[in-house]
Amino acid sequence: MQNMKKMLGSVLGGLAILGLTWSMAEAKTVKVVLTAKEVKIPIDNKGTLYAAWTFNGSIPGPVVRVRQGDTVDFTLINPKTNQNSHAMDFHAAQVDVLKEFAPIKPGTSEHWKFVAKVPGVFMYHCGASPMIEHIARGMYGAIIVDPKGGFTRQYPKPDREYVLVQGQLFKNPDDYQGMLQQKGWINSLINGKVFHYDPVHDPNATQALVAKPGERVRIFFVNANTYGTVAFHPIAGIWDRVYVNGNPRNVLYGLQTYGVPAAMGDTFDIVSPRDRPTNNAIVDHNMPAALRGAITVLMNTPDADPSLGRGKNILLK
Amino acid sequence: MQNMKKMLGSVLGGLAILGLTWSMAEAKTVKVVLTAKEVKIPIDNKGTLYAAWTFNGSIPGPVVRVRQGDTVDFTLINPKTNQNSHAMDFHAAQVDVLKEFAPIKPGTSEHWKFVAKVPGVFMYHCGASPMIEHIARGMYGAIIVDPKGGFTRQYPKPDREYVLVQGQLFKNPDDYQGMLQQKGWINSLINGKVFHYDPVHDPNATQALVAKPGERVRIFFVNANTYGTVAFHPIAGIWDRVYVNGNPRNVLYGLQTYGVPAAMGDTFDIVSPRDRPTNNAIVDHNMPAALRGAITVLMNTPDADPSLGRGKNILLK
Amino acid sequence: MQNMKKMLGSVLGGLAILGLTWSMAEAKTVKVVLTAKEVKIPIDNKGTLYAAWTFNGSIPGPVVRVRQGDTVDFTLINPKTNQNSHAMDFHAAQVDVLKEFAPIKPGTSEHWKFVAKVPGVFMYHCGASPMIEHIARGMYGAIIVDPKGGFTRQYPKPDREYVLVQGQLFKNPDDYQGMLQQKGWINSLINGKVFHYDPVHDPNATQALVAKPGERVRIFFVNANTYGTVAFHPIAGIWDRVYVNGNPRNVLYGLQTYGVPAAMGDTFDIVSPRDRPTNNAIVDHNMPAALRGAITVLMNTPDADPSLGRGKNILLK
Repeated sequence: MQNMKKMLGSVLGGLAILGLTWSMAEAKTVKVVLTAKEVKIPIDNKGTLYAAWTFNGSIPGPVVRVRQGDTVDFTLINPKTNQNSHAMDFHAAQVDVLKEFAPIKPGTSEHWKFVAKVPGVFMYHCGASPMIEHIARGMYGAIIVDPKGGFTRQYPKPDREYVLVQGQLFKNPDDYQGMLQQKGWINSLINGKVFHYDPVHDPNATQALVAKPGERVRIFFVNANTYGTVAFHPIAGIWDRVYVNGNPRNVLYGLQTYGVPAAMGDTFDIVSPRDRPTNNAIVDHNMPAALRGAITVLMNTPDADPSLGRGKNILLK
Repeated sequence: MQNMKKMLGSVLGGLAILGLTWSMAEAKTVKVVLTAKEVKIPIDNKGTLYAAWTFNGSIPGPVVRVRQGDTVDFTLINPKTNQNSHAMDFHAAQVDVLKEFAPIKPGTSEHWKFVAKVPGVFMYHCGASPMIEHIARGMYGAIIVDPKGGFTRQYPKPDREYVLVQGQLFKNPDDYQGMLQQKGWINSLINGKVFHYDPVHDPNATQALVAKPGERVRIFFVNANTYGTVAFHPIAGIWDRVYVNGNPRNVLYGLQTYGVPAAMGDTFDIVSPRDRPTNNAIVDHNMPAALRGAITVLMNTPDADPSLGRGKNILLK
Repeated sequence: MQNMKKMLGSVLGGLAILGLTWSMAEAKTVKVVLTAKEVKIPIDNKGTLYAAWTFNGSIPGPVVRVRQGDTVDFTLINPKTNQNSHAMDFHAAQVDVLKEFAPIKPGTSEHWKFVAKVPGVFMYHCGASPMIEHIARGMYGAIIVDPKGGFTRQYPKPDREYVLVQGQLFKNPDDYQGMLQQKGWINSLINGKVFHYDPVHDPNATQALVAKPGERVRIFFVNANTYGTVAFHPIAGIWDRVYVNGNPRNVLYGLQTYGVPAAMGDTFDIVSPRDRPTNNAIVDHNMPAALRGAITVLMNTPDADPSLGRGKNILLK
């Protein structure tokens, strides 16, 4: 039986690129190793350095992607060169906050597993104290758990996929009391940079999301703000569908804007007009966030780079 | 065939007042001309003047109402007497943010079209920079796209309809940096005035929404705040249904409160007790908003003026 | 017929503890008497006294629980020893804001009835002016209206039930203007105390929510903040289901976080791993709220006290 499954899996694996057999894949174990890194990294498109705390040296950390039912075999490394304890809090995990999510000291590591039982897009972040600073300094990312049911009429196969993680930049992330009083938030970050993908508002921006006219673009969005709901809106477009928590069972149709609370992930489909090139500006329609960095351009043109919005290029560096 | 459709449309048009044939109407082209006007207008019930920027001289601008599938043939006029560039951003349009939504200078106009493909209630607003100021000064309104499916069991015909658009009044809307830091918000506006329809809290208020006991009142609500979720609640009542984005497919039942994020529109049905007169106070239950203007009285009495909540009187002046 | 119903009701009443016959119970009248009490009560686990305004002397007031269709026969007493007028605003009631919800002076009382027609979990609060102060000082609670349809596949019977009501503590709740400007919020309260059920963050905390591994725990949550959305999240867990407004018709599946706007109630189911003990930390993931009091520990252990999360112990004192 096991052999037959494997054989079948192999045959079906060959067909998987057609998108037909996804739902029959076997659960697997996915090794994920993340290293807490306290490093200076560019926080905008002109290269301003910022004393970040990160997973693997970037904001956000790497996109983790598994299939519903898979086991995540996780290792967190906190090198002795760090100054602070760190921890991992995967929102996709059902474990023990005092055990798996407990902080570990510099010079140590931890290893644990969880089965990703619930589909969707989830935030992960450092849960060490003071948590507001660990998040504010950049220790967050997205884990996508693809539904075991695969693509369906309710959850159609997209042509492109992008991950967008919004965060906050504080004037002084050491000012714990100030941040608790909601003071000192000076910019919004999209995938770690102010106006990351917005060449319209930032002359130093070199990238944008791209797609061809009429393509279904799926955006896995995580609100990694330390506080505040994001009013997620595609200027000049309408969300064709919104999947609450990225779960195909929770579908809403035809939304101009959707409120994503702090520490939530949702999935947004947009389909641009098929008959012409267009541009959307995906924003947090809360103006203080948009005008301080939370604007992302999506260019819908016939010559869209076919390598973007696929594979490793779902999070543009 | 075309003739037959027209003939049928004409016959059916005569029946439309019965509400039976709405779903069979043909798509049409609706001309909408809006003029950006920088004018002083009353911002409260006692007539305090405010240097507003508006569409057509009022806050909110005119209600645009079309049927799903209709083409909106739009003209924006920016008279040379204005000081600022202006633009139009219809949340119901799927176009190009850099083309249709681009700002135009005083003394110019623009003309473009879009097909209103998605049903619901949508915000429209000026998208010229600095957008927070253009919205804060009053350049916003509502566009209703009635569903092509017409009324159904899931989306019953209401007895009255009202449009409510909530906005913010800032002490100094020129203070761009202050507004980005969420400073200076001093009052909430409902359809352009503080306590517009609240004779209970404002002795100068002369109007309220009205209905007869037991009538289904449908409220098309737009959150035109520059930031912040509205906690929309009918004091002494319960929303019978909430249609997310005003789309009949997205229905929620029996809600005390619904969170409407910035730049979102949702549709709310309320049915008061049939056997007695009552009053509701429709509020943003965030107290700083309610107590500074965001309270609207809905009077449910047998002698309710039959002309209100219908036709042009869905937005009370 | 009436007799037969009564007899049947009596028989069925005897069976009701089995949870089998809930849907067949007859509508009843439930007397609720609440007394406005202006008293000093402990606001944290070490006993710091606070000049609260309350229903019945506690924050929150008593949990009112009825079944959909029941009549609530309500009396509000405002003793002459109080300094302020008070009022009752049940979000579950469909009445007249100017009549039933009107404030009454010290030394008076009022009596009125309403039929609880809509199922769910609802906020109740004092609606007397200035409402922001009456809520901020503690005059709020939860009313649960169990659905007349009883438990179903869509709304399964939980093993435990808990009520959590989140509120805000202000430095000076007399500072009306300051609160309108969102100043002075210093702590978050869960059922009336800072870190009420969080022995991890507060050495003086003696309680936590408890359940056995694998049990379905249903949390009736009310956001009694004077402003602000709660990002409700169970650290190390995932909401199995969220019922918007607590209504079985409005179900969402598998959510990491759900945004509960001010003055809203929602119902959250969580099922911990069956094969091991775990702990969750239920938080408002807006860090300024969590780190100032809005963290609740849920311990899932085989020896969980069977008396907790049942009957009167759904709100832990």
